[in-house]
Amino acid sequence: MSSSIDQQHVDIMAERAKCTFDPAVLTPLFYGGEENLKRLKAVEAMVDSDPVFNREDQYFLGRTERFKRALPMVKRYVELRNQHGLTPDESAHFRKYIDDYIPVNLQESMFLPVLQAQASDEQLQQWLPPAQAFRHIGCYAQTELGHGSNLNNLETTATFDVERDQWIIHSPTQSSAKFWIGSLGKIATHAIVQAKLIIFGKDYGAHPFLVPVRSLRDHTLLPGIMIKDQGPKQGAVSMDNGYARFDNVRIPRENMLMRFSKVSRDGTFSKPPHPKLAYGGMTTVRTALISASAMAMARGATIATRYCAVRRQGTVQPATGLETQVLDYPSVQSRVLPLISHAFATIFSADWMTELYAQYNSNASTGDISLLKDVHVYSSGLKSYCTKLGADGIEEARRALGGHGYSLFSGMIDFHRQFLAAVTYEGENALLTQQVSRYLLKLYKDLLRDSKTHLSAPSRYIAQVTSSYSEFVSQRCQAQTLQDLYQPEVIIRAFQHRAARLIHELAEAEKRTSNGAGVGGWSDLNLECMRLSKAHVQLIMVENFHTGLERHYNNNNNNSSSSNKEKELALLAAVRSLFYLHVFWTMETELAEFLEDGYLSSQQAAWVRQAYKDSLARVRPNAVGFSDAFGFSDTFLNSALGSYDGRAYARLAAMTELEPLNKDLTDEKGVIWGYEEYLKPIITGQVGPFRVKSKL
Amino acid sequence: MSSSIDQQHVDIMAERAKCTFDPAVLTPLFYGGEENLKRLKAVEAMVDSDPVFNREDQYFLGRTERFKRALPMVKRYVELRNQHGLTPDESAHFRKYIDDYIPVNLQESMFLPVLQAQASDEQLQQWLPPAQAFRHIGCYAQTELGHGSNLNNLETTATFDVERDQWIIHSPTQSSAKFWIGSLGKIATHAIVQAKLIIFGKDYGAHPFLVPVRSLRDHTLLPGIMIKDQGPKQGAVSMDNGYARFDNVRIPRENMLMRFSKVSRDGTFSKPPHPKLAYGGMTTVRTALISASAMAMARGATIATRYCAVRRQGTVQPATGLETQVLDYPSVQSRVLPLISHAFATIFSADWMTELYAQYNSNASTGDISLLKDVHVYSSGLKSYCTKLGADGIEEARRALGGHGYSLFSGMIDFHRQFLAAVTYEGENALLTQQVSRYLLKLYKDLLRDSKTHLSAPSRYIAQVTSSYSEFVSQRCQAQTLQDLYQPEVIIRAFQHRAARLIHELAEAEKRTSNGAGVGGWSDLNLECMRLSKAHVQLIMVENFHTGLERHYNNNNNNSSSSNKEKELALLAAVRSLFYLHVFWTMETELAEFLEDGYLSSQQAAWVRQAYKDSLARVRPNAVGFSDAFGFSDTFLNSALGSYDGRAYARLAAMTELEPLNKDLTDEKGVIWGYEEYLKPIITGQVGPFRVKSKL
Repeated sequence: MSSSIDQQHVDIMAERAKCTFDPAVLTPLFYGGEENLKRLKAVEAMVDSDPVFNREDQYFLGRTERFKRALPMVKRYVELRNQHGLTPDESAHFRKYIDDYIPVNLQESMFLPVLQAQASDEQLQQWLPPAQAFRHIGCYAQTELGHGSNLNNLETTATFDVERDQWIIHSPTQSSAKFWIGSLGKIATHAIVQAKLIIFGKDYGAHPFLVPVRSLRDHTLLPGIMIKDQGPKQGAVSMDNGYARFDNVRIPRENMLMRFSKVSRDGTFSKPPHPKLAYGGMTTVRTALISASAMAMARGATIATRYCAVRRQGTVQPATGLETQVLDYPSVQSRVLPLISHAFATIFSADWMTELYAQYNSNASTGDISLLKDVHVYSSGLKSYCTKLGADGIEEARRALGGHGYSLFSGMIDFHRQFLAAVTYEGENALLTQQVSRYLLKLYKDLLRDSKTHLSAPSRYIAQVTSSYSEFVSQRCQAQTLQDLYQPEVIIRAFQHRAARLIHELAEAEKRTSNGAGVGGWSDLNLECMRLSKAHVQLIMVENFHTGLERHYNNNNNNSSSSNKEKELALLAAVRSLFYLHVFWTMETELAEFLEDGYLSSQQAAWVRQAYKDSLARVRPNAVGFSDAFGFSDTFLNSALGSYDGRAYARLAAMTELEPLNKDLTDEKGVIWGYEEYLKPIITGQVGPFRVKSKL
Repeated sequence: MSSSIDQQHVDIMAERAKCTFDPAVLTPLFYGGEENLKRLKAVEAMVDSDPVFNREDQYFLGRTERFKRALPMVKRYVELRNQHGLTPDESAHFRKYIDDYIPVNLQESMFLPVLQAQASDEQLQQWLPPAQAFRHIGCYAQTELGHGSNLNNLETTATFDVERDQWIIHSPTQSSAKFWIGSLGKIATHAIVQAKLIIFGKDYGAHPFLVPVRSLRDHTLLPGIMIKDQGPKQGAVSMDNGYARFDNVRIPRENMLMRFSKVSRDGTFSKPPHPKLAYGGMTTVRTALISASAMAMARGATIATRYCAVRRQGTVQPATGLETQVLDYPSVQSRVLPLISHAFATIFSADWMTELYAQYNSNASTGDISLLKDVHVYSSGLKSYCTKLGADGIEEARRALGGHGYSLFSGMIDFHRQFLAAVTYEGENALLTQQVSRYLLKLYKDLLRDSKTHLSAPSRYIAQVTSSYSEFVSQRCQAQTLQDLYQPEVIIRAFQHRAARLIHELAEAEKRTSNGAGVGGWSDLNLECMRLSKAHVQLIMVENFHTGLERHYNNNNNNSSSSNKEKELALLAAVRSLFYLHVFWTMETELAEFLEDGYLSSQQAAWVRQAYKDSLARVRPNAVGFSDAFGFSDTFLNSALGSYDGRAYARLAAMTELEPLNKDLTDEKGVIWGYEEYLKPIITGQVGPFRVKSKL
């Protein structure tokens, strides 16, 4: 009856035995190819072999201890990076793999990129070497108490003093205080401060300034600067996000970052030739967040899948006399398996976005910035959608783990808390959807005016709705059988139809919106924008998944030996089962939007629900195989429930050994700290007799 | 342009000035009436005035420190309870109001109720007084590593030794270890252990036994007992949930709890007359969880509403020159305001459930247990639905707060982590939906066989689908205009139709399900059961909200003065606006299920979306008023963002003062701990030069 420890190991190995493909073949997809995978796994080995990065105590430490534990990591990280001359992507993987948001985490991912993007060549000559070597520890100070991503409304001022050739950096109000600035609280020596540039009383808007904040000699705060750590957060436990106010702090004129805008000795302000060029940074970070979302989903899916394969509950199977593996229940499958499919969908879209961005950068170097809008819109839309898909999907999977999912030992909680920040930063998710929808609406209107307007591939479908609307609304899904729903054209047409309809409806709603009611105008269309952006991004996700899987895994190599051919087909079938799961999960989740103009019939809607359920059943046998394909080490997962060997209960029990309440707070006779003072008086009745006599 | 500190206070007071009703009139709804409210507020004052319960440092402490801080609270709580003779509901409120899950939190809410329900009168005479006085600190040990709520599959054994008249309590396997047992880890002196009762080799299933676990003399563990704290969790930070194994531990025969089953000296086992009587406890806890869900939603809604009323971003309003209060944006409204409406919906359903349960208990005392099934099914369904509604809704509202929602100072995170447990315990949410659906399916089949089958009020609608199905499927929503959608009959008919259809479809699916495929039979219908249970519960929620608001606030008292009459009508209108928001939020969220058999037309679906948006706008002006109506003190909210006076930014800044990194870890010159050892070597370039030369 009971699932013993060995049974859990037997169960997970049996899952591997029935997997229809070799998981290792899929792993490079998540690490940028085979060569990269090899290098990055070598980085992981470097981390694993160093006791400074041991994460055994991670779940037991409060914030103060996590911070204290992170400082030795900072030093060791820089040492190893220097010693081995790690490339930027190796360094980035090193920091991810530590799995702790150490207080210099943003040096290379934020401070250096902004510096390189915004400082002039002469400035870089001076500032880049110490920053790259960590002799300057930097941070990027944009967000204030009162404003975050809206640069126009920042309040910190940088006023030019032409006499002394200096900027005066000042925080005029409480709400102008810088807040959320990673590394600033306790560590950074320099901050790139976004401040309103003011010359002779004229406000030129926010610009970046390099402000030294701590002495390079003894790390004391420089005059006029008040900085504190801003306190505990949902995640980023070890990071010293800072709260800062500037009281007329003076820096040289040359400390304004002058790659684009410039200010001369006499206070003459000159604008950059292409103002849009100044905004590359956000796109880089958003693009990175798409693959980060994929990896977070993959991590949650790995733990949840493995544990649900070794957890047995409920119905006893006659064949074995054992209870059922919970992964065999549709209710569990529906909470865990879609996350696997979303991880694949997201990595394919991350790859697509990375290519698009590379294309843009390559064009831009020759002066062609025609892809700028696409790059901005698609990185925004995908960031908004994928971070939410991950944040919600991981939590949903966690809830499928029963009570043990509530233990930090599950490994499902700590990293999710960290990931949750991504929903908010680099553009709040709801706001980003407005930019996507505004763009689509513009294309729609352009098309109405001129049917020859150029559309890039992912938005070409809009033409369906601009030629004849009456024709468009009479479109119906062509599936005659449940099986027809599996045709990629049928699927993509359905997603296109829905998105096109929502563009049309947004345009109609905009016409109706007077500027009088509510906030007025465009802002009243928030909900319509959110719906449209999601519909458009879901279409792109489906298209990218389909294109990517055909390109990578539909190998029409007729020279393959028949045994290889068989393996290739099995792999293709396995990845396709995930494609369909992602598709039908999405369609079922959004079913109303396919139904409400009659595009899907009642019968077809029922087929969608059935196809979703069937897809769960088809992915099920390979689920553990997919979890292996993600390529996570046990060390990284740090999970009692999701380890490779499946021995969940033994690990849960073993991990309690390290709990401080069992070690430091319990004496040799097994008695808890505080017994004499707080418990004995109660147990021995020294706290007065009890009789209910409420007189309140 | 910028929102200064005073502006935030001005803004929130302006919100109060425009509220159309007196919030204080609504507060008793959330505290069980006016008399209760007064008593419970007196309890709050008692807690507030005692420094032991000061929660200023709550967000800074790790688990070890939270546990250490909780022990003095335990002692002081017992002292005050005894001194004032607090009633059970006053004690319960005291513990809730502390807002820390102290390690004796389950003594009165779990240990005592189980003891009282399961021990015989003679046993109670002996055991109740010390337990009530906390001289015995108890816990309830059911869950094991391998099994939770399924009593049948527990592995711990209690074997009768007839010679010595003793039970031998034993944990035969790793997975039989008790786990998740609150208070057991470090505190409890006694455990009620659920164990398989075995006499002369025969297994009689799980029964409860009172097992002393620690010495009453010196608190050391008793022989044969291994207990550890089980490590850190998502919430319940201060609670010492325990992990325990028993190695042939002997207790007297009389320590079996014998109110129902009994075992005599010679090992004769006797069953209770009504076996179902033994299962009251779960219902009590589930019922309590429904109101706990309402209060959690109310808490999250209070913070989110207030902060979104004082946070200004984006569009500048011409009239004032100030940016827009974010609560004026539909995207923010749609994430925050529904939570207010759900809190009201849930409290009305909690009241309904409490009454139903009281009715059952009153009947049961005269031997009539006909309501048992209803009580079980509705407490399960509502628990499953409301805990999820709260868990998801609070997180959604948190994400509407921008970056500051990610700070623990927001007050949105700590309590939510605690609340998340409710989704899982006392019956996992997905499992509970199966019991609801199975019940409905049975009623449906009974009705098909016999159209005179008795149906209690909330399930009477099932008859719609059993008389003539062809007639039923041709039903269409009768709304001819958007305005018609606001008729309660139209709303309730729509919810009834949908639930009735899903019952019919579940019955059809059951016929099709062979016992061969998948897990087999009923288990393959998980997803259908989840859908049906949700549909049925959403109907009940809507009905209870409607009945409750009409009963409480539609005062047809013609003797009212005209000024009173006006106030009464304004209050009624305000609560009705929440009713409609709850209704249309639910309908929009579940729109596919109203559309897929054609019950709603495309036009009507569009009206639902419009009615939802209109409802947001109607609730908006009273939003802060509703937050006041929930009656939370600032001390309890412990939130920089959601305090009564609105001064969010000033509080965020002030709370950083207490951060340990700023106090204990920073020296008098402002230099951080670890600078010399870990940072100086980096900043001064002692960690080697850097040049990329990857050789990995």
